[in-house]
Parts: sequence; structure tokens; C-alpha cells
Amino acid sequence: MRTIWHCYIAVSLDGRIARPDGSVDWLGEEGPPEEFGYDAFYAGVDAIVMGRATYDAVRAMGDWPYPGKPTVVVTRRPLPDAPAGVSARGGDLAALAAELEVAGCRRVWVEGGGDVIRQMLAIGKLDILEMAVMPRVLGAGIPLFPDGTPDTRWRLVSCTPRAGGALHAIYERAA
Amino acid sequence: MRTIWHCYIAVSLDGRIARPDGSVDWLGEEGPPEEFGYDAFYAGVDAIVMGRATYDAVRAMGDWPYPGKPTVVVTRRPLPDAPAGVSARGGDLAALAAELEVAGCRRVWVEGGGDVIRQMLAIGKLDILEMAVMPRVLGAGIPLFPDGTPDTRWRLVSCTPRAGGALHAIYERAA
Repeated sequence: MRTIWHCYIAVSLDGRIARPDGSVDWLGEEGPPEEFGYDAFYAGVDAIVMGRATYDAVRAMGDWPYPGKPTVVVTRRPLPDAPAGVSARGGDLAALAAELEVAGCRRVWVEGGGDVIRQMLAIGKLDILEMAVMPRVLGAGIPLFPDGTPDTRWRLVSCTPRAGGALHAIYERAA
Repeated sequence: MRTIWHCYIAVSLDGRIARPDGSVDWLGEEGPPEEFGYDAFYAGVDAIVMGRATYDAVRAMGDWPYPGKPTVVVTRRPLPDAPAGVSARGGDLAALAAELEVAGCRRVWVEGGGDVIRQMLAIGKLDILEMAVMPRVLGAGIPLFPDGTPDTRWRLVSCTPRAGGALHAIYERAA
């Protein structure tokens, strides 16, 4: 069974996923996660892959929100006091992706954006793009799709307005 | 009567309005302009304000598509062989905006993005953001909202899927 690589993320109207310092203080007005199908999505995720900036931001928020979910942090630096199930991996995302596929992961949450998204797209490991598009222009911050992201086509699956003016948009990678 | 400053533009999923060289060859799969209400929008526009890059790109496409519509190009360089109705203005966008308001313009099309959008937002002259969001990640190009665009909130008016997987999204500037 093929592994599905799934980006699920909140993004500003100008395509940023965090302020320059990594903070997401501009989120929280978009209504409850249930509106975006979070519980069902999370239940179907076998593993999480994230960048170091995302890991650090999530860690700074308090209790680890993914207990027991295998999580790989793409980083060359050590992860002191990492929660159970969290491991660090440097460098080769293609090898990591192959391992997760061999391990039988049906769906992997590619969390965060920036370098990890760019690299996953470059090796053809991004199938679904699911976004909560917030009605906010930040004007600065970390882009979901940085310069150098591969030129790619997507198929619109659905787009639904949610509370607070957020859009719940789902795309599939086009052939 | 208050002037409405209206950005109406096609943008990629990663928020780019043109490739690095200004080209929009990635457009054209989004179905006819009628789907995005272009004719009614254009008929209600009293003037157009655009940046030099947008002007040069439009000029390179062939016949001038806005005959008889007063158009101001924000540029410090001359406009050789400009079509009738097209004028060049350098620098002070606040003065330009005041002139168009005094002249009785009810709706001004702020065409293009980048510096002009950033500057218009900075002086509070952008009320409506209407986008054809194309299902395409470019990975490079001119952003609709460049770094330094003011942090602003928007209210979702509508979002409608169109042919080819484009989204027709309309936002109003929130107070």
C-alpha cells in the first residue's frame, strides 16, 4: 500500500506559517480544530515528519501534543529531553522516506513548511496539501513554499469557509 | 462618496503573481475571465493604478487591453509610446490617491502586486482583495505580498471554485 505524504498546516493569506521568530501568535481565531477535521486526520497519521523550527515551536507551547506518535525531526543538532517517540534525523530525506514506507506507514504528516516542504516536494513525497488559510496578511515570516520549491501542479479537492473567515482548502498533487 | 481600492489579480498557490522575469505563462488554464466576474468588475473601474513591472508585462502581451481607461503607472522612468490614457507617476502614492479621490473615482483597480500593494496598504488604500488562486506552486517569482507588507486583517466575503481548479476568493479589509 502506497504511503500518502500529507501536509496539514495553517497559513496566512500571504503564505507564511510563522513569524520570523517562529511564533504563531496570529493563530487562534480560526475556530476549533474539529472544523478542520483534525481528530480524524490525526487518528489516520502513522508518523510525523517535521523541521527543527517547527519542533522547537511546538515544544515551546507546552506539553508535547503528539504522545506516542512516531515523530522524526529533520535536524543535525541533538534533541535534548525529547519526548518519547521523537527521534532526530539529519540530511537524507529520501532515505528517511524510504524507511517510513518500508515500515508500512500509510499516511505521514509532513508538518511545517519551508525547507522540509521544499525538500519533500523535490523527492516527490508530497501528495496532499491541506491548509487552513487565515484571513491575515503578516508581511513577514517563514513561507510555506520558500524560493526553490519545485514548480508543481495541484488539483483542488475542496475549499470550505470556516469560522473566523478561515478557508479549509485541500489539494492533491497533480500528475 | 468613498473611493474603493480594489486589488483584482491572479496568484499562484504560493502567492506569486509572476515569474522572476515578470512572465505569466503559467496562467491561462483557469477558464474564461467571465467566471471571475471580470466584465462587471472592469466596467465599474474608473481608473487603474499599476507598477512598472505590471505595465511592461501587459504591454508585452500585445494590444493595450484597457483602451480609454485612465491608467497611472507608478514609475520614475518615462513611458515611451504609452497608449492614450496612460500616465506615469513617480513616488508619492498618497498624493496620487488623494487626486483620484478628489477626481471622483468610485473604484480604482490596483493592478499587480509587490511594491505597489505594499505601499497602498501602508497608506490605507486597499479595501478589497479579489484573487484567482491558481492550483500551481511556482517556487519563484514576484510575490503579491512582499516582505514589509503591513500586518493586516481581512474578512472573507466569498470563495468559489472555478474551472481548472482555480479559487475565486474575495476579501474585504477588516477594520
